[in-house]
Amino acid sequence: MSNKSPYSPGTGTYGEVITQPRIFTFGQPPNEFVLESGQRLGPIDIVYETYGTLNADRSNAILIVHALTMDHHAAGKNAPADKAPGWWDDLIGPGKPFDTNRFYMICSNVLGGCRGTTGPTSLNPTTGKPFGMDFPVYTIKDMVRVQRELIRHLGIDHLLLVAGGSMGGMQVLEWGVTFPEMMDGLMPIATSGRMTAQNIAFNEIMRQTIMLDPAWNRGDYYPGTGPAAGLSIARMLGMVTYRSDELFTARFGRRMTNHYPEAYYNFENRFEIESYLHYQGEKLVERFDANTYILLCKAMDLHDIGRGHGGYEAALASIQAQTYFIGVDSDWLYPPLYMVEMAEIMKKAKGQAEYWELKSPHGHDAFLIEFEKMRPVVASYVQELARKRGL
Amino acid sequence: MSNKSPYSPGTGTYGEVITQPRIFTFGQPPNEFVLESGQRLGPIDIVYETYGTLNADRSNAILIVHALTMDHHAAGKNAPADKAPGWWDDLIGPGKPFDTNRFYMICSNVLGGCRGTTGPTSLNPTTGKPFGMDFPVYTIKDMVRVQRELIRHLGIDHLLLVAGGSMGGMQVLEWGVTFPEMMDGLMPIATSGRMTAQNIAFNEIMRQTIMLDPAWNRGDYYPGTGPAAGLSIARMLGMVTYRSDELFTARFGRRMTNHYPEAYYNFENRFEIESYLHYQGEKLVERFDANTYILLCKAMDLHDIGRGHGGYEAALASIQAQTYFIGVDSDWLYPPLYMVEMAEIMKKAKGQAEYWELKSPHGHDAFLIEFEKMRPVVASYVQELARKRGL
Repeated sequence: MSNKSPYSPGTGTYGEVITQPRIFTFGQPPNEFVLESGQRLGPIDIVYETYGTLNADRSNAILIVHALTMDHHAAGKNAPADKAPGWWDDLIGPGKPFDTNRFYMICSNVLGGCRGTTGPTSLNPTTGKPFGMDFPVYTIKDMVRVQRELIRHLGIDHLLLVAGGSMGGMQVLEWGVTFPEMMDGLMPIATSGRMTAQNIAFNEIMRQTIMLDPAWNRGDYYPGTGPAAGLSIARMLGMVTYRSDELFTARFGRRMTNHYPEAYYNFENRFEIESYLHYQGEKLVERFDANTYILLCKAMDLHDIGRGHGGYEAALASIQAQTYFIGVDSDWLYPPLYMVEMAEIMKKAKGQAEYWELKSPHGHDAFLIEFEKMRPVVASYVQELARKRGL
Repeated sequence: MSNKSPYSPGTGTYGEVITQPRIFTFGQPPNEFVLESGQRLGPIDIVYETYGTLNADRSNAILIVHALTMDHHAAGKNAPADKAPGWWDDLIGPGKPFDTNRFYMICSNVLGGCRGTTGPTSLNPTTGKPFGMDFPVYTIKDMVRVQRELIRHLGIDHLLLVAGGSMGGMQVLEWGVTFPEMMDGLMPIATSGRMTAQNIAFNEIMRQTIMLDPAWNRGDYYPGTGPAAGLSIARMLGMVTYRSDELFTARFGRRMTNHYPEAYYNFENRFEIESYLHYQGEKLVERFDANTYILLCKAMDLHDIGRGHGGYEAALASIQAQTYFIGVDSDWLYPPLYMVEMAEIMKKAKGQAEYWELKSPHGHDAFLIEFEKMRPVVASYVQELARKRGL
């Protein structure tokens, strides 16, 4: 059974369902949203999609939170001609782990995003021009607090589960410490409770690379595409950190695009790994904004669940939800050891934590790839939460 | 005993000895040096230093080969005012593992370098201007073949040992497969027999970053300093790969340079790890040339001891020297597993190989830092070689 195999006909799949993003707007002046920094921002648009139906007692909602370059479009297609469905379509749909026959799934583009939610590409109401780098510094906690507004707007005051990987996992954990009574379960995947110095280092190098591109122009490049070359190189670095040495060796080895011996010493002759990274870089540029990338990376750098919660251990001890950590053995960007550590701190504090390790050569990105391995595990955890909630 | 402690007075230390780089020139037209690619290059200057005295039967010579941004100045000072001695001074000197009372140490700046040996900053005899990016693509094997010319010039046809780390270790291995009968010992440290796809990926990202800087100007920036910002960012990335997550966490953690709470959300407020990397980047720019960096990285990418030797395993099997591999447990750029693998392939082929693991949190760069741990091990191996040679 391949990752892309069709699901049994008749049950339907979100892969063929047309989903419609919606917008919720809040924080109209003078009632702007107050960021963690104290800065005021508003109005804020938040773009989101939902899959499935909210039940009568509003107890079956699951919030999915996305990673750095993903968005609110987690499942289905927005138009029949879309080449691919949403980024977690393999997990979301009728009969899938996030079963849309039973659960009401919500996914929104994060604060500071570039897919419709207010961010650096949005118009700054005080200037009438896009914010660019005047967009305020925000945090993972701000993303979560904005999602809280959306949930309230949807008439929901309790979530069955919050789940996501990477930057999504950071939001999951921040949900757990900021609104500890609001959910039954948390599923942080391939993530950490606080960015390490090495994590910050990679982000700073990516930011500097974007800002080195003259087309960045201090963030003032709209309506142009901006620093395409810089963003592309940043993405190349990101991709290396999202995969593994083992995977690259297996997939590309030392093969060159032009493998004639006489081309070996040609400076322009790329190794296949180089071609692959250039392709990935160019692909991101088509769909992502550079200032947004810079500030999202900054938000990640500021990620530390201990801040405002008495430190890292106290924050973890304050989590009330049943937490299911998923680490990836080959993930060297957010090494499993930190997830194991978090689960152990929680257990010592009498919290409900479990850790499961996804065995995969794919590195950090395995949570977007290894659906066959994840499905039974995710399904069983979601069903356990549902059973406990009487769903 | 600290790494920087003075040695016993009276024995002298290279830290206080004034060493004088010398130049050997060869490959005068029409007898240019023929690169592996078939391109001709000449004349070639090779800058080198020697420490100690060549014995009567010319049997006590040890060749030290350097890493990416190092040079021929491995020990002593070139002037009394020099702040620090050469890069391996802690290992080279009277009574040290590379004992200059007993051995004749040689270290040269590699082909393509920027410290005096012919490279991109040298004048192209056909144009009268610096080569820049017109400098031909060369390889690790070319570096080694140029060193062979120097050794011949010094009247030496056998080396007791060739030793070096990182790109130096690549040269060590290339020496072993290109001139298998020319040495008693090889000491490759924190290196590999062929660059992996991930290694190449990091190099390509560094090259692209330098080339993104408008001051690079397709390599035509002399006599200016050129793409300082791009080279600095490349070095920042290099430094991350040379150290470890563990080290950065211990040394910098999540501390910010301005640690007042109100500065936390300031985009310009750097984490200490960011400051450190920027400092390292700026420091490299003062002493290194960008085109040289680009082409040295390309030479590394082409590194594969199997090329021209019937493949990786056959190449290792052809090594005749007693080989002492040193890996660093926290080195994720050139993971120890590849060094273990090389030692095992050699042993299966009845070669003389040993592997020793340096335990250190310092990552790849440990071979430039952990001198206390390395000294006894290196000394004992060198003494064994000397004893066998009757020195």
